[in-house]
Amino acid sequence: MPRVDEFGLIRLLTGGRSNPARVEQGPAGTGDGVAVGIGDDAAVLDGRSGFQWVVTCDTMVRDIHFKPETMTYEAIGYKAMASNISDLAAMGAIPRFAVVALSVPADMETEALRELYDGLYACANRYGVAVVGGDTTSCPRDMTVSVTAIGEVETDRALLRSGARPGDTVFVTGPLGLSAAGLHLLLAAGRSAYDLAGLPEERQRLVRAHQFPQPQVEAGRILVRSGLGRSQNDVSDGLASEAWELAEASGCVIRLEETLLPVDSALSGYAREAGLNPLELMLYGGEDYRLTGTVRGEDAAAVQALFDAEGLEFHVVGHVLADEDSATPGVLLKRRDGSISPLQKRGYNHFKEDQSADA
Amino acid sequence: MPRVDEFGLIRLLTGGRSNPARVEQGPAGTGDGVAVGIGDDAAVLDGRSGFQWVVTCDTMVRDIHFKPETMTYEAIGYKAMASNISDLAAMGAIPRFAVVALSVPADMETEALRELYDGLYACANRYGVAVVGGDTTSCPRDMTVSVTAIGEVETDRALLRSGARPGDTVFVTGPLGLSAAGLHLLLAAGRSAYDLAGLPEERQRLVRAHQFPQPQVEAGRILVRSGLGRSQNDVSDGLASEAWELAEASGCVIRLEETLLPVDSALSGYAREAGLNPLELMLYGGEDYRLTGTVRGEDAAAVQALFDAEGLEFHVVGHVLADEDSATPGVLLKRRDGSISPLQKRGYNHFKEDQSADA
Repeated sequence: MPRVDEFGLIRLLTGGRSNPARVEQGPAGTGDGVAVGIGDDAAVLDGRSGFQWVVTCDTMVRDIHFKPETMTYEAIGYKAMASNISDLAAMGAIPRFAVVALSVPADMETEALRELYDGLYACANRYGVAVVGGDTTSCPRDMTVSVTAIGEVETDRALLRSGARPGDTVFVTGPLGLSAAGLHLLLAAGRSAYDLAGLPEERQRLVRAHQFPQPQVEAGRILVRSGLGRSQNDVSDGLASEAWELAEASGCVIRLEETLLPVDSALSGYAREAGLNPLELMLYGGEDYRLTGTVRGEDAAAVQALFDAEGLEFHVVGHVLADEDSATPGVLLKRRDGSISPLQKRGYNHFKEDQSADA
Repeated sequence: MPRVDEFGLIRLLTGGRSNPARVEQGPAGTGDGVAVGIGDDAAVLDGRSGFQWVVTCDTMVRDIHFKPETMTYEAIGYKAMASNISDLAAMGAIPRFAVVALSVPADMETEALRELYDGLYACANRYGVAVVGGDTTSCPRDMTVSVTAIGEVETDRALLRSGARPGDTVFVTGPLGLSAAGLHLLLAAGRSAYDLAGLPEERQRLVRAHQFPQPQVEAGRILVRSGLGRSQNDVSDGLASEAWELAEASGCVIRLEETLLPVDSALSGYAREAGLNPLELMLYGGEDYRLTGTVRGEDAAAVQALFDAEGLEFHVVGHVLADEDSATPGVLLKRRDGSISPLQKRGYNHFKEDQSADA
């Protein structure tokens, strides 16, 4: 029998479901209220005048998405909230509300649970998110932290994966691979790395990137407010995977360039000492929660100026090929030596193999 | 150290958290957009003109809230959706959207997962709910099904727990205890009870009440549309527990009358044969997902007529005592013999002790 962790199964189970008729309609003319359903970073629903709601849900499971050796309780809470806020940022939305479903072993200590909530609320407060409800239950053995986040975006302005077009410039909003390097460091060093004060500043940066990622809400808002964003994804499963999603949803070919990828000195330093390939970390390391997407080629300089004015990072890392080169959607990488080759379509492996799928 | 399953701990951890300032405000004049926060069946948020959003979240965990002997996969999915729709019904809201977070063991078979989704969607479709997203992950050992449901209600018309007042009439929207009796039957009979065709019709009704509960959305809507509903709760933890919540939130004393409680013949028949106390099942059996609440005493006949016209059940089961008798909130039961005694403030025990708490 096929198993639940097989790729694409969840999509299969949810993708073909019909959208129901309403039992009782809201105000006339709104249809069923679903502007964008399953399949992007978040769903888009009719909101109050001029706005749409954006809804997303992301779960973290112990020993699947994190281990006690790699995450403090505070970090677990913070990151569970951050990954959802990042999905809203990917749509260009303003984060507003969150609901938390927590299932934890019955013998979990109060202090640990308090730290977990501290992390959830620290992230929520930082991004102006009101935690409006939730359900906390015990679980026989595992621990799951599931957050549903709700944001708002101006009507029909949400940044979807499907908006990339030939001639677009591909961007990222900061250096990548730091979270994966931080995970590697934590797995190698164990809990001792929790004591950040004992680590050199650059190592601290890697650990913080893994434990307390910062969703790029302001970057997404610049792209929506300016009207210059065309397509977008957040980097949760690694740049290669996100670029593939953009390419497939948009029906285009994206070419990334190795020499354009921003490199953080903490990443390159750690990779060198640990014998890791920094390019591998930048392309296939996940959970950086930076944004990647596209703007029109002719708008790239204007967007760069908008980001510069806000003190935010904006890096051009490639472009969308012309139509005649786009028979089959895909992602290419132009390497430092000038060679061009297809980029593997694989996502981020937390510990061995990725067993999650957004439905 | 205190443990997570201690009563009230979750409220303690979430109740004192401050509501954050917005990073970027929505349209002027909406404040933070939270009309009702943590502490009722659902949160109430600013919606489009004339409406508010109602958001709720409820989780079912294997071996805590159900066992394989008591629930088919289809029933697990159906009931997980139903319990959330019931929270919306309790607020008098129109269910509209849902997001599903599913964590299941990696070796769960595809067919089982498909049945679980079938159940989720069957319930969603029945109540006009669009499933707009979710996250399905594997879990090392446990199974959790967490649903976040979103509904709409006319602005400031949501039925809260806190609206009961002296002189109000207390109602329930149908007989209670059937789900608890169904659970008892399933635990006694095991999976053989899954074969409903082999059971007498009245036994089938008990099993269906436990496995496929029917949230009372239309009842809640009658009470909102008519403007006659004053307070409301859904019966998830048993009538006694729900009445206590109404009494404490409203600061009043509720007196229920044993002779007024509607009795289902399937329940009384099963209780007799199994040696169970039917009153115990009706007061402390949970998961019937009927509604209980209050209307003004002088409005009770009009509400009864509205329910009759729709072919829905409405049973007066008690009243809210006059102010002079309400020094301390609480719930009394007038028994068949005329004696009046306080009703225990305890909830529904799934198998041994209830380890969940709505945050």
